[in-house]
Amino acid sequence: MKKIINNPSTVVDEALRGLAAAHADLLRVHTEPTYVVRADAPRPGRVAVVSGGGSGHEPLHTGFVGRGMLDAACPGAVFTSPTPDQVQAAIRAVDGGAGVVLVVKNYTGDVLNFETAAELAAAEGIEVRTVVVDDDVAVKDSTYTAGRRGVGGTVLLEKIVGAAAERGADLATCEELARRVVAGVRSFGMALTSCTVPHVGEPSFSLTEDEMELGVGIHGEPGRSRIALEPADGIVRRLLDGVVEDLPFTESDRVLLFTNGMGGTPTIELYVAHGIAERLLAERGIRVERRLVGPYITSLEMQGMSITLLRLDDELTELWDAPVHTPALRWGV
Amino acid sequence: MKKIINNPSTVVDEALRGLAAAHADLLRVHTEPTYVVRADAPRPGRVAVVSGGGSGHEPLHTGFVGRGMLDAACPGAVFTSPTPDQVQAAIRAVDGGAGVVLVVKNYTGDVLNFETAAELAAAEGIEVRTVVVDDDVAVKDSTYTAGRRGVGGTVLLEKIVGAAAERGADLATCEELARRVVAGVRSFGMALTSCTVPHVGEPSFSLTEDEMELGVGIHGEPGRSRIALEPADGIVRRLLDGVVEDLPFTESDRVLLFTNGMGGTPTIELYVAHGIAERLLAERGIRVERRLVGPYITSLEMQGMSITLLRLDDELTELWDAPVHTPALRWGV
Repeated sequence: MKKIINNPSTVVDEALRGLAAAHADLLRVHTEPTYVVRADAPRPGRVAVVSGGGSGHEPLHTGFVGRGMLDAACPGAVFTSPTPDQVQAAIRAVDGGAGVVLVVKNYTGDVLNFETAAELAAAEGIEVRTVVVDDDVAVKDSTYTAGRRGVGGTVLLEKIVGAAAERGADLATCEELARRVVAGVRSFGMALTSCTVPHVGEPSFSLTEDEMELGVGIHGEPGRSRIALEPADGIVRRLLDGVVEDLPFTESDRVLLFTNGMGGTPTIELYVAHGIAERLLAERGIRVERRLVGPYITSLEMQGMSITLLRLDDELTELWDAPVHTPALRWGV
Repeated sequence: MKKIINNPSTVVDEALRGLAAAHADLLRVHTEPTYVVRADAPRPGRVAVVSGGGSGHEPLHTGFVGRGMLDAACPGAVFTSPTPDQVQAAIRAVDGGAGVVLVVKNYTGDVLNFETAAELAAAEGIEVRTVVVDDDVAVKDSTYTAGRRGVGGTVLLEKIVGAAAERGADLATCEELARRVVAGVRSFGMALTSCTVPHVGEPSFSLTEDEMELGVGIHGEPGRSRIALEPADGIVRRLLDGVVEDLPFTESDRVLLFTNGMGGTPTIELYVAHGIAERLLAERGIRVERRLVGPYITSLEMQGMSITLLRLDDELTELWDAPVHTPALRWGV
């Protein structure tokens, strides 16, 4: 296992120390229990947005804490759900009296632990709404999940709901927006190579030189099929067809196209893929009005990519465009 | 070779097509010859900043074209210098009558081809100043280079000189700033794994499971030494010691710390490394006043990292903070 780490058991804490040092203007890292929180939390009278999940998917979620996105993020161990007490402590830290939206990717452990935390917070009088993201079209059920997995759509949801909360939207409005994003977003991913979880020390799965995993999960869990490696045109067409035909996205739909790298994919390859996706969407008459290209929800050093499409309306577009200042996404400020 | 590409011979053009589609508000891609240019070029009366080099190091340089950074970038084939006619055409496209600064990483082919282009442009009456970046402390001479190689310092230089040009600084001022950055910036990198150049199809070099290459070049060329893999503490200490002792940076120096990923390094590892670098600099009494963490000068899918330190003064700090809007760096706008 070749990694720039000191010890598998301290890698998350050490990375958070680096995050705190690099972005002291934006966030603080709390320990025992661990969560990352906006430097100016709690914000009285504002809805707070909290997310979290296993580490190893950076910048998701800790890299999205800041102005106009998340108020707090709860990182678990690598590929391991955060505990209820982490989430409960984060909710307490950010509650400004207007309620808290929990954004949960649909993995059994995450759903269970966030739900427990939500109940504990509710018992303390904090109004909590939980939104589960399940945008991955690859498989119906899978390792760690009943129902579809939550993947790239989570990034877009956190940006949009965070923007609404930032400008003072109330809890019902934030929840409705989150549900609208969930209803209109779909993703599909693939891997060329595996990743290696630090405390495991061996690759999570193996692929031969001429295979790829279509529909791979962000923990390396099996996808829809293992097929022969194809040129980029074929890869992107498979991902995009899967996404478009699922919702379905139809002619003259306005969309945000998110071309995501899994962590080990070079930027040059991501832009090759993005260009193909733009062309294929143009052929279908689907209008790409916003874009995001880069590694925003990753699986450690896995080589691979995913495509996410979000159906846009004027309100979602405007919230996407709103100022954001986090370690990983920044504009307008 | 596992890559998301169609064909090694079209990968650069296809990636540029994706870049143009994703960032039509910022830039245009010109073909025959190939260069990437700001959408609003030329800007009359403003100094223009032009860079370029082999592809495979993205986002450097094409991802830095836009407001407040580069006016144009000339991408060569992967790890191959751009031709003089690319550079000459880019100079013509951006010249607004106030002169052009060429930012050249110190590799023999780049220096030669940019120099030829500068002479051709000068013969056409365009005032051109060439600044060569040679910030890599790893080795004195190396494959492709007489003298030190140009690496991470180039990113910082392009941001700072681009900011000065954006606000109307004249050619002499831009050149002086560029030389001040070159004088005060040092870098040192390492690799855990090789990268594979698409048209070669085989890894550029090989390392065993317990080796790392200290001082690796961004084309995978040999570094200072091949040594046993160490924990992150040891890796970062070696890189930082090399950088600090070279200039040297001394107690109470104000610096920008740039922790760079080589392309295949997970974000979580980069933040582990960044946190260590912050701690080691604090121990030396060197004041980190600005940070950049991420993969900004890469070697395809290579796993590894580099540390760059730039000595700051008030003017450089203010230019670093100035608004920038490019595909890869954006703030204040």
